[in-house]
Amino acid sequence: MTQTLQDRLSDYAAIAADLCVDAVALVPGPNFTRALNHSFMSHERPFLLVIPANGPPAALVPNLELGSWDQVGFDGAVFDWRDQDGYDTAFAALTAHLAISSLAVEGQVMRVFVHHALKAAQPDLRIVDGEREISGLRMIKTPEDVAALQAAIDISERALAHTLETVRLGQSETSIEQVLIRALFAEGAEDLSFAPIVAAGDNSARPHAHARADYAVQAGDALLLDFGARKHGFAADITRTVFLQHATDEAQEVYDTVLRANLRGHAVTRPGVTAHDIDDAVTGVLEASPYADRIRTKTGHGLGRNVHEAPYIMRGNHMALPAGTVYTNEPGLYDIGNFGVRIEDDVLITETGSTSLTRFPKELTVLPC
Amino acid sequence: MTQTLQDRLSDYAAIAADLCVDAVALVPGPNFTRALNHSFMSHERPFLLVIPANGPPAALVPNLELGSWDQVGFDGAVFDWRDQDGYDTAFAALTAHLAISSLAVEGQVMRVFVHHALKAAQPDLRIVDGEREISGLRMIKTPEDVAALQAAIDISERALAHTLETVRLGQSETSIEQVLIRALFAEGAEDLSFAPIVAAGDNSARPHAHARADYAVQAGDALLLDFGARKHGFAADITRTVFLQHATDEAQEVYDTVLRANLRGHAVTRPGVTAHDIDDAVTGVLEASPYADRIRTKTGHGLGRNVHEAPYIMRGNHMALPAGTVYTNEPGLYDIGNFGVRIEDDVLITETGSTSLTRFPKELTVLPC
Repeated sequence: MTQTLQDRLSDYAAIAADLCVDAVALVPGPNFTRALNHSFMSHERPFLLVIPANGPPAALVPNLELGSWDQVGFDGAVFDWRDQDGYDTAFAALTAHLAISSLAVEGQVMRVFVHHALKAAQPDLRIVDGEREISGLRMIKTPEDVAALQAAIDISERALAHTLETVRLGQSETSIEQVLIRALFAEGAEDLSFAPIVAAGDNSARPHAHARADYAVQAGDALLLDFGARKHGFAADITRTVFLQHATDEAQEVYDTVLRANLRGHAVTRPGVTAHDIDDAVTGVLEASPYADRIRTKTGHGLGRNVHEAPYIMRGNHMALPAGTVYTNEPGLYDIGNFGVRIEDDVLITETGSTSLTRFPKELTVLPC
Repeated sequence: MTQTLQDRLSDYAAIAADLCVDAVALVPGPNFTRALNHSFMSHERPFLLVIPANGPPAALVPNLELGSWDQVGFDGAVFDWRDQDGYDTAFAALTAHLAISSLAVEGQVMRVFVHHALKAAQPDLRIVDGEREISGLRMIKTPEDVAALQAAIDISERALAHTLETVRLGQSETSIEQVLIRALFAEGAEDLSFAPIVAAGDNSARPHAHARADYAVQAGDALLLDFGARKHGFAADITRTVFLQHATDEAQEVYDTVLRANLRGHAVTRPGVTAHDIDDAVTGVLEASPYADRIRTKTGHGLGRNVHEAPYIMRGNHMALPAGTVYTNEPGLYDIGNFGVRIEDDVLITETGSTSLTRFPKELTVLPC
């Protein structure tokens, strides 16, 4: 069942052939981890795996990583370089060895200094952005991938339950955030998917708000928590919005609108649905409400080793989504200066329909505090 | 005392002038955060701040970030774009507005898809790598920066002390790692500087090892912990290597060699010393030992908002280091298949010499377990 390294590298060779380029290059990040079944850091050091359409792969490896690289079971050519010597010679040796004229790279992962080093070593090398095809290999999740995501989500939901039990009026957003972070690790998180968003009152209207140390949460506030645990290399991403002590009529109507949009997204999700169709259904509910001017985002994004990955759930993306796709269904309404509501689930497309991997309750919740 | 947004943007305008380019572009990351005094996420969305050598700045902002962008106090032109529309039009409008012909970017931060979007909008735009100059502005730490680093380091050292008290023979590396991570957040970490390295026995010989769930730590093992807390946006980075129950004569000699190298680094550090001179002194101690073939890394790197940043402490880097520089002094000896030792301090260059911000004891420690 499990793919071998050779099988996985063949996937990228096939992409090179499909894109009519001579090879695919990967740098440390989610595709690199998937290809090698081993994660590496990069920082200031270039680190490159090149898989030609035809012929054996090759790699450019920082010397200090050779001890870890030995664990990968790679049998292609390896060009290592030491900090003191710099990497120009290794790039020159790699490109001479490969003798290619075109290369597809991960545009959302590779940084410009690696692009420049490749061009310096081989000025006529044609570099194209193969992000969509390369990262597209991660779109259909294996059963092992789904199990890892579910573990990350279960940890996240337990941490959220604990956090909501401890919220009290007068707390700062940062103190609530700290409770949440500690709960995530106490529940078994390996890392955070991203710096959590814990935002109350007017701050909840900023989709990527930062928690404030100098704002005390008040009765009537919306409290939005958007966060996730990382487990076995996969990232959960869940949002719930609750209200403190009471919710105004407007808040209840807005919440109901967002919840209906979210439920509509679940209802239309089945194998073969397009990303466009999901966003159209979800955003359509928001647009039909009195709060259409508070729409600020698309419906969601794919979820896996990266918090944001293909498919992007938005109008205009007519990609049909197969079983095994996991995406975030996260409609929101944001009234700048007033408050925002977002409800985010992680949805798996199954052979027969869909299932929500997030199961945390979504009915309007007013914390007694 | 504190710089205004205008002051900080002027720093980048001056760099553009120095580099003989028309403007500097920043993308979300440590320089962006320094410039705006506000951190933003990017993910799949391009987000760009352009500071011309002459004239007002401009920005390309994802629409959903406008609510957060309002907090920045930016008064230049803003070109926003929505997910559903894509960003090509915004790039075209931005480049038409700027009317520049050359641009310096952060090669270690900007990803290739942004580079491609700029070139698509303006094919004749000359893009140069200004990483060294742009990130160089972060090299000299302000008193506020140093206070944040010290807070991150203090948290890290308390977490380490707690973790070492709990280590027992037979534990897995991953279980020790979990204790460490929970302790970091319990002590007040906002985030991890990076996924910690907790490696025993032969795994300690891999400079960037991953903790293993299936290895039980044994008497005689070296146990290497390399990790850090992030606080107020700044990242600690500390390594200690201890031994479990006993240390062989070889282990003691290797440890003593690494410690002497580390102490030599402290001894030569004063304002005006070059990165080359520090590495030469530290690595010289290792080279003069019987273990010279176990050297695998340079002495260290700058530390601040990024875990790895300028200055890189290695031979050949003849940059003189001024007061306010913080770098990691982290010599190590790695015998692949056997064991490794690394001792890492975070060193601040002061007006009169240097001080170690890390103060965790460094004498050879054998845990009783």
